[in-house]
Amino acid sequence: MKASNVVTLLFIAMIFAVSMENAQAQKGGQMVRLARLVIDEAQLESYRQFLKEEIETSVKVEPGVLTLYAVFEKQNPTHLTILEIYADTASYRAHLKTPHFLKYKNGTADMVKSLELVEVDPLVPGMKIK
Amino acid sequence: MKASNVVTLLFIAMIFAVSMENAQAQKGGQMVRLARLVIDEAQLESYRQFLKEEIETSVKVEPGVLTLYAVFEKQNPTHLTILEIYADTASYRAHLKTPHFLKYKNGTADMVKSLELVEVDPLVPGMKIK
Repeated sequence: MKASNVVTLLFIAMIFAVSMENAQAQKGGQMVRLARLVIDEAQLESYRQFLKEEIETSVKVEPGVLTLYAVFEKQNPTHLTILEIYADTASYRAHLKTPHFLKYKNGTADMVKSLELVEVDPLVPGMKIK
Repeated sequence: MKASNVVTLLFIAMIFAVSMENAQAQKGGQMVRLARLVIDEAQLESYRQFLKEEIETSVKVEPGVLTLYAVFEKQNPTHLTILEIYADTASYRAHLKTPHFLKYKNGTADMVKSLELVEVDPLVPGMKIK
């Protein structure tokens, strides 16, 4: 294969890669996840306070944290699910380094009995809460 | 017990009941639920179309449907979770009678392999999606 053909192929591959990235950006590039946790019953009230403070601070001060919607099961209040929506993966990575997240993570480490993180695709990406 | 005392007791009980009801109303009276479904893989694309139309119509035309945020698991696309928020139980009951909900319910009856409805309490009731 001639060198000029190799250059042409590399150029086509580069255009393709850039257009894929643009397509991703046009989709909004949001990162959406479900976190499913089980909390130690004896420490549930303390856990709820840690989580509430962390959520309220994150949504208030981090533009890239679009929501952290946490719900506790009525029949099983130690079981919770959090719908997490970040503007993009960079926002998520920045979130992990914030003092309020680290305070929550370290403060609740021995309260969390199990944690499952499930990557998800929203059916209607622009959906809001009225 | 004298009749006047009975009247006084009934009056106190009435005041108590009314104040409890007000407390509930002040909490917003929202109904929040997680629906967890598993869909027949062979009919997944058709199911997604039914659900998308139902969700978009509900949120658009029903003021009491505050969100229906549906997510499909990336590793297991037949598994989905819907965060459902209604302004109150009356809004939810009205939703069940709408033509768009009935079209979805009847149209997808043989596509849904399992359905679990979990009543939940939000940690931060006024939380939105930015």
